[in-house]
Amino acid sequence: METHLQQQLEALKSALLRMASLVEEQIARAITVLVERDFELCEQVIRGDQPIDAMELEIDDQCIRLLALQHPIARDLRFVAASMKITIDLERMGDIAVNIAKKTRKLSGMPHLKPLIDLPRMAALSQSMVKDSLNAFVRGDEQLAMDVCARDEEVNQLQDQIFQELVACMVEDSGSVPQALQLIFISRHIERLGDHATNIAEGVVYFSEGRVIKHHGTDDPNQSPTRPVSGGPA
Amino acid sequence: METHLQQQLEALKSALLRMASLVEEQIARAITVLVERDFELCEQVIRGDQPIDAMELEIDDQCIRLLALQHPIARDLRFVAASMKITIDLERMGDIAVNIAKKTRKLSGMPHLKPLIDLPRMAALSQSMVKDSLNAFVRGDEQLAMDVCARDEEVNQLQDQIFQELVACMVEDSGSVPQALQLIFISRHIERLGDHATNIAEGVVYFSEGRVIKHHGTDDPNQSPTRPVSGGPA
Repeated sequence: METHLQQQLEALKSALLRMASLVEEQIARAITVLVERDFELCEQVIRGDQPIDAMELEIDDQCIRLLALQHPIARDLRFVAASMKITIDLERMGDIAVNIAKKTRKLSGMPHLKPLIDLPRMAALSQSMVKDSLNAFVRGDEQLAMDVCARDEEVNQLQDQIFQELVACMVEDSGSVPQALQLIFISRHIERLGDHATNIAEGVVYFSEGRVIKHHGTDDPNQSPTRPVSGGPA
Repeated sequence: METHLQQQLEALKSALLRMASLVEEQIARAITVLVERDFELCEQVIRGDQPIDAMELEIDDQCIRLLALQHPIARDLRFVAASMKITIDLERMGDIAVNIAKKTRKLSGMPHLKPLIDLPRMAALSQSMVKDSLNAFVRGDEQLAMDVCARDEEVNQLQDQIFQELVACMVEDSGSVPQALQLIFISRHIERLGDHATNIAEGVVYFSEGRVIKHHGTDDPNQSPTRPVSGGPA
């Protein structure tokens, strides 16, 4: 027979999965807005953020009640602690989806600049990191989580490259400044999706075995000038 | 006589205060680097990040042990939960200080652009929000916490203004692009300090009375095109 603790842990996991799937949907929509310039989808992304915000608060409540009434220990306790941190990353990924959609809308009517070619690639990479970090979380798959962390560097490199190209565009043609700036901001948002996926992946390793990999990556985040949010400063 | 729970809560509070004071020092140094172009201080800011990262992990451990062994309830439990969230904001503020210092270093040798006049003002505002959010946390001062949240809008407005000015510079003189871009990034970092201060202030209201003000601000964050990190999307 399942204990109350097990039931409540399952309920917490389900709630996190619902929140994660809302966030994934939002990111997919935002990237469609970006890649296909589908501005009608924009409003849907903006409206889609509120349920995610609500879920963050709900899950926090769930965690607090679970801690107060069930006194989980060891792995279960670490899972609850990691859940409270993961909701922060999920909520911010939701915000980022909205930001991508809104900033893409500002590009409405402007011609495509060349670096957009790499943006969808970068977006696809970040999106796969988000998906895999959530899969790693669901399955407690530590190997997949480590793999997500390793991929962050590739996203950072792509962003550096896009940034350099956009700066060159702006210097060459001052008319491209407003558009290039929006694309720089969008690429930073996409890069931050990767950072949040990395945070989640670090959380998975933490609750799986109580081992901390945060702030101990093999790559040196200080080397990257474009890593504004995650565990290491840029 | 103090119970074990009270002792451990006090120890947790002390640890958070030590972490907060390290972060405040780092921010103050980074802003000195920016305002006085004191590039020698830069290395000190970069080195100063590691102890903050270490404290985040230590405090998380402390919280987990406290939850496992002391079973805090009600306000005490909310305090521990809020602490685990506050360390995330503190750690990221530490990263932001490093980012500000590094991006300022890239300005080395370039002449000042006009918008730097407003950046120190914006920096001072964000810095006061950080200070007050931490004071509010120490004293459990809910009124001060609400006041911090209200000030975030002013920082956002200043950032919009600086952004517009810098775009105008870039369009007018393409030679200013690299420098103007760094200033835009710096202003975004400073704005995010305000966002993190707001997160901490929301946490104070939460653990003081279990009331959630997150995602329920009076201002509409969607109105601001420049709010990338905090509770509301930009």
